[in-house]
Amino acid sequence: MEWRDGGTTSMGVTERGFFVERSGDLIPGILWAPAEVTGPVPLVLIGHGGQSEKRNPNGLALARRFVRRHGIAAAAIDAIDHGERGPIVATEDPAGHLDYIALWKRPDTFDRMVADWQATFDALIGLPGIDGERVGYWGLSMGTMLGLPFVAAESRIKAAVLGLCGFTGASAVRGRFGDRHRADAPRVACPVLFVVQWDDERFGRDGAFELFDLLGTKDKRLHAYPGLHAEVPPEGTDATREFLAARL
Amino acid sequence: MEWRDGGTTSMGVTERGFFVERSGDLIPGILWAPAEVTGPVPLVLIGHGGQSEKRNPNGLALARRFVRRHGIAAAAIDAIDHGERGPIVATEDPAGHLDYIALWKRPDTFDRMVADWQATFDALIGLPGIDGERVGYWGLSMGTMLGLPFVAAESRIKAAVLGLCGFTGASAVRGRFGDRHRADAPRVACPVLFVVQWDDERFGRDGAFELFDLLGTKDKRLHAYPGLHAEVPPEGTDATREFLAARL
Repeated sequence: MEWRDGGTTSMGVTERGFFVERSGDLIPGILWAPAEVTGPVPLVLIGHGGQSEKRNPNGLALARRFVRRHGIAAAAIDAIDHGERGPIVATEDPAGHLDYIALWKRPDTFDRMVADWQATFDALIGLPGIDGERVGYWGLSMGTMLGLPFVAAESRIKAAVLGLCGFTGASAVRGRFGDRHRADAPRVACPVLFVVQWDDERFGRDGAFELFDLLGTKDKRLHAYPGLHAEVPPEGTDATREFLAARL
Repeated sequence: MEWRDGGTTSMGVTERGFFVERSGDLIPGILWAPAEVTGPVPLVLIGHGGQSEKRNPNGLALARRFVRRHGIAAAAIDAIDHGERGPIVATEDPAGHLDYIALWKRPDTFDRMVADWQATFDALIGLPGIDGERVGYWGLSMGTMLGLPFVAAESRIKAAVLGLCGFTGASAVRGRFGDRHRADAPRVACPVLFVVQWDDERFGRDGAFELFDLLGTKDKRLHAYPGLHAEVPPEGTDATREFLAARL
């Protein structure tokens, strides 16, 4: 792991870019941590949504709140072919960026992303300010598409927020991750809060319920709110933070 | 409204029995309120479950917590033919008490219960210690079967906890309240937290989802937990309290 800069501090939060190298691949990430460090703090790994990147506005606000309100560090990396790892960027085309569509057709996408997260996990818990026994995962939508296999594979994750994902709907058909999720969901063993948007236009709620049902952990709960895919209300996001903060 | 006793106080909670009279019917109830009253407090009306009564252990614990943790008064009444209004009592027979089965076949059950709650509401907000502008409803299972029509009819209810109820499952078939709920759910206009037990053996979750979907309010959320009908975890009950406390 290599720091990219000395970090900047704003309102108690120090933000610092890093690279993790894995098999020649350079994974760019950001760590947000309390500026005043008194001892090792818990960590939440944040998986961003599709056609987004590690420093998207929602993720940034979430990370800062983890630090400021809970004294929990947060980290995000660019997913494969996203952000600085390009070429996928946000597009107005409802069909999605061509390279985004291609991403889901490549057989190694899930395994690569699991390995990326594990390398990042290993690097970050090696830092003196991070408590490696208290690490959680937060990822909705593509953060679940790519994050669920990671949470299933990584027993050191103590709690996870998942959701806005399932086996039905336009995005599920395009994603072709149903088989992978059906195999991995029963292996998710940590406490989970699963978020569903009742009127999700990308993932049908029935398929989301099916995914929740398959999660292997008995310590799970589902929160559903009216609205479209991207309309999780502040109440819902707050509950995901409180959920992880109470368990890390 | 008539007090039945002078009240007893335990750990900051004064519990006092009352009667409300309506069309010759005597409705027995209990009010739990802060022993040290500094001004009008909010009120939560608690509807008990089937074959139970106003002072059941769960309801009692819930009422005391509303008072102790939130400074909110709570009140419960015996439902028609329940508790002191007999003859329905808890039975080990999975088919249910005969008079309980009969209750759902009488055409006036819902209207009587709505009127009972409204008379109780009117009586309690007439008390100097109660703030009539801040009244909520809490009722799961039969507390929703009989309480949803009340919440739909009573616009003065500011927020409601409903759930463990729906259009499918053994209890739904026996209850025959589907038509009433289909008509009333769209009229529920206040914020609602709806609770679902994922493995509910009495109400199927699909039918519960359908009921949630029909609720007219846009300010609604659904919390689901693994387990049978009566296995709502402490986390789930706590969330219902926090929900009402934040809105009253």
